[in-house]
Amino acid sequence: MRLPLLALVCCAVMAWQHCAAEAAKARHFKWEISNMFWSPDCEEKVVIGINGQFPGPTIRARAGDTIHVQLKNALHTEGVVIHWHGIRQIGTPWADGTAAISQCAINPEETFTYRFVVDKPGTYFYHGHYGMQRAAGLYGSLIVDVAEGEEEPFKYDGELNLLLSDWYHESIHTQMVALSSKPFRWIGEPQSLLINGRGQLNCSLAAAHTPWVNQCAAAVNRQCAPVVFPVQPNKTYRLRVASTTSLASLNLAIGNHKLTVVEADGNYVDPFVVDDIDLYSGDSYSVLLTTDQDTSSNYWVSVGVRGRQPKTAPALAVLNYRPNRASKLPAVAPPVTPAWDDYDHSKAFTYRIRARAGTAPPPPTADRRIELLNTQNRMDGHIKWSINNASMVLPATPYLGSLKMGLKSTLAAARPAETFSRGYNVTLPPPNPNTTVGDNVYVLAHNTTVDVVLQNANALSRNVSEVHPWHLHGHDFWVLGYGDGAYRGDAADEARLNLRDPPLRNTVVIFPYGWTLLRFVADNPGVWAFHCHIEPHLHMGMGVIFAEAVDLVGKVPNEAVSCGATATALMAGGHL
Amino acid sequence: MRLPLLALVCCAVMAWQHCAAEAAKARHFKWEISNMFWSPDCEEKVVIGINGQFPGPTIRARAGDTIHVQLKNALHTEGVVIHWHGIRQIGTPWADGTAAISQCAINPEETFTYRFVVDKPGTYFYHGHYGMQRAAGLYGSLIVDVAEGEEEPFKYDGELNLLLSDWYHESIHTQMVALSSKPFRWIGEPQSLLINGRGQLNCSLAAAHTPWVNQCAAAVNRQCAPVVFPVQPNKTYRLRVASTTSLASLNLAIGNHKLTVVEADGNYVDPFVVDDIDLYSGDSYSVLLTTDQDTSSNYWVSVGVRGRQPKTAPALAVLNYRPNRASKLPAVAPPVTPAWDDYDHSKAFTYRIRARAGTAPPPPTADRRIELLNTQNRMDGHIKWSINNASMVLPATPYLGSLKMGLKSTLAAARPAETFSRGYNVTLPPPNPNTTVGDNVYVLAHNTTVDVVLQNANALSRNVSEVHPWHLHGHDFWVLGYGDGAYRGDAADEARLNLRDPPLRNTVVIFPYGWTLLRFVADNPGVWAFHCHIEPHLHMGMGVIFAEAVDLVGKVPNEAVSCGATATALMAGGHL
Repeated sequence: MRLPLLALVCCAVMAWQHCAAEAAKARHFKWEISNMFWSPDCEEKVVIGINGQFPGPTIRARAGDTIHVQLKNALHTEGVVIHWHGIRQIGTPWADGTAAISQCAINPEETFTYRFVVDKPGTYFYHGHYGMQRAAGLYGSLIVDVAEGEEEPFKYDGELNLLLSDWYHESIHTQMVALSSKPFRWIGEPQSLLINGRGQLNCSLAAAHTPWVNQCAAAVNRQCAPVVFPVQPNKTYRLRVASTTSLASLNLAIGNHKLTVVEADGNYVDPFVVDDIDLYSGDSYSVLLTTDQDTSSNYWVSVGVRGRQPKTAPALAVLNYRPNRASKLPAVAPPVTPAWDDYDHSKAFTYRIRARAGTAPPPPTADRRIELLNTQNRMDGHIKWSINNASMVLPATPYLGSLKMGLKSTLAAARPAETFSRGYNVTLPPPNPNTTVGDNVYVLAHNTTVDVVLQNANALSRNVSEVHPWHLHGHDFWVLGYGDGAYRGDAADEARLNLRDPPLRNTVVIFPYGWTLLRFVADNPGVWAFHCHIEPHLHMGMGVIFAEAVDLVGKVPNEAVSCGATATALMAGGHL
Repeated sequence: MRLPLLALVCCAVMAWQHCAAEAAKARHFKWEISNMFWSPDCEEKVVIGINGQFPGPTIRARAGDTIHVQLKNALHTEGVVIHWHGIRQIGTPWADGTAAISQCAINPEETFTYRFVVDKPGTYFYHGHYGMQRAAGLYGSLIVDVAEGEEEPFKYDGELNLLLSDWYHESIHTQMVALSSKPFRWIGEPQSLLINGRGQLNCSLAAAHTPWVNQCAAAVNRQCAPVVFPVQPNKTYRLRVASTTSLASLNLAIGNHKLTVVEADGNYVDPFVVDDIDLYSGDSYSVLLTTDQDTSSNYWVSVGVRGRQPKTAPALAVLNYRPNRASKLPAVAPPVTPAWDDYDHSKAFTYRIRARAGTAPPPPTADRRIELLNTQNRMDGHIKWSINNASMVLPATPYLGSLKMGLKSTLAAARPAETFSRGYNVTLPPPNPNTTVGDNVYVLAHNTTVDVVLQNANALSRNVSEVHPWHLHGHDFWVLGYGDGAYRGDAADEARLNLRDPPLRNTVVIFPYGWTLLRFVADNPGVWAFHCHIEPHLHMGMGVIFAEAVDLVGKVPNEAVSCGATATALMAGGHL
């Protein structure tokens, strides 16, 4: 009786695969990652490039396609991985590209093939996820169109792609040493902002309106030439905007034009119209823009810093109404970025984001609530970020392999705390300024619904609380609500939650002194990072790990576990 | 019959081990390697330190001791290895510390234990051997005294240790990118010379005699404070001097004092007296100095550049005749380094080095002669150094493991050339300026005697031929002779060979346009690098690999092969 049944299941699976293969494509990419000289903001430094390009090549696919990236590490002495930000990696947790979590870093001269399905249309990007390699320029766009024959729920005539980043002149090696030093050295604010990998350090396109800087000469250096977006009048464009900054929170505005937000992090949202949008590191949006303004003019695309006192000039690009010359600069000054500390403006935008009508609502209740108090602390002369007073340090052997193989020695026995003291005063520096190292692994039962309260607090200095954009791997989550002050879980806090049309995201901000509550279903076996997307904050320990039904993870490829304790165990005859 | 015989052998081995254990010691070291800020020449940069020190801690042992270095890699994203320069690693080829050759690079957060016997007294050092990590400051001294109860063949009252290096302000990451770039970018001359890790960039101890620079203030920064060597008058000191420069060839002189050379690369030499000694990168010497000068004065220790037009100020230290104050500077100017291109001076020193009387002579004949023509070439827009027109590139999987496991795919099928055209004109640029990538593996039969002719030639530019110090791993070799022009192997060349008392070395120089002939016995199963010790030259491909009786190598520890194709094979059930 059992064999025929099994055969039947196999046939059904094969038929489905065959069917899917007809609709979806395998898309193959062959990449080589190397250090190279580049001048993103007209000042040369060593960047991490892909196939000699910075930023890396754009991947474009359709929902349901399988992406194959055969990645060769041509760095001289450094390992590398690539994370596909926003792709949930359902069934392929070893392709998530997080060093020490989902896979062994790819050694120099080695090749690793990432294979994964892009199951959902949207605006994504990819980036390095080892040390601070993202901040060295290891990133690019990943755009997923709707499946063949399907349609987006909004219309547009063309697309513009804006991958935003910030740029430092210090090497990431120096930055990592600085952040790990005793005494601590902060990396400071970025030197430049980049649009599609290009910025201008010592000149401005809008020098006519900012007379203390020089006018940029035309195309002195192609690597840092200002970006021009050519458009036709009276059309609607979809701007795909993503931020892969190391530190900066950004704001984007386009002179004279309104923006209609239609997508956030690969999820459709209830459309709404704004003058400008905020982007925290890790965010992506689609906004629609209609070229309905005076056709004789070009318009500014302006990107400025928010959330920290800016010491970095805005990045500018030109929205070029054809057939005007691209070099015809707008007569008026670029849009002014809202004040960096105008959090009311930020909240108005963020709170306005809701799921598009027709999106399935979240489960009405959760099985578990994990509260994560974000504090800044000292540890043996270092400065760290901590979650419930434990600062995350990643292990030598990646979690996915070691947990799958049951190598208990690689995991600390103690369960991390999942609540914080009800009396904690978030408006003051931490009463206990000291923290300890933690592995911060939360084990989640399969298919349970988990609520996470991200609680912001005062940093070590009085009257300082920073913005932190938290990014979850392997999942989208519903953002149920936000609040100021300490989360108490009382009726007033409950009243702030939106269970009707909360947006699905993979990145969410916590505002200074505030909290954010999100919900997700632990339905994707794997080991997933959940962390502040600010690169120096993650380096300083601001993250946790969710280990989810690791026993249900399929066969992990050997290449993902050929290091550390998993390699030792497998070489001794162990099995995955 | 077989069991008792086996038991007998075992007992004999155990008895010997027991016996050896009584005489020799196990010396344990626990090291952590990390990047840190340091100011070797008073300008701060990121260096690679060991246990927070630069240079790394000095290892001191007795001949016959076993060294155990438990090495933790605390770099953020880079692998690391340590090579024990001059230690032959008899029976422990996996402990030679050459990435991609003898072992897998140690991944961040991983620990690897080097265990090896220091079988021979002498002046050695250790250094990184992955990418250009040596040039980032990853080095230190390794000094082996004679075994307990034995005596050195010369007398002295005290010791001074001088580990010499050069120093660049560019990071090695930038340097590696530069050297690998199209178009090629040369790294230039070092900014400073260091004595025991200390130099002075913008000041000089001898400013009184070089009025265009500032006098160094007293102990502004301990990390770059001038080195003082306190000595008692009318004593004899053994100066242990080693050069771990990235590029520079050096000359050491001590004001008013003669130097008696007694040891070279851990081998006793026929003592001879000189005013100054040349040190090429990879060389080490012991010289005796008698403090027989005017006791009211201190004296200069001066280290300058030779072999390349110097753009780097000499390094100075003070030989402090006690009880004079250390700050009492010599009244006269420091010794002047011989002209950089006075090769007659260099040759006079080098040719004078002969084995100490009583040293066993070399085998009178060789079984094989390998000629290695050193040329500079172009390859696809890059500049490379080539050996017999192949530029060495190291594989993803280290040779020792892959050859031991018989993974033929990791080794190119073609045997590298072992001679060059008799008509090759070494005084002109290469007639074929192009080269190709090679794996340059020479397979040597066990216990055969091998002659190597290192043939220098003109570089790509006319009238340029550089000094190259070649270093052999796993062996000492006899330096049989040197000559100018092309080696022809004729009677005149034969007449230049010294079979009576050639010195044993592990590093030997080839002079511009000249040749050097050396001989060694392939009696140490393993895979051994043989390469120019100039860090940028090695990076540009100037080396070959000797694979020697790999079938006779003992069990390679798993930690040395847990990467690449060997890890894959072992995880699939393969055996070493």
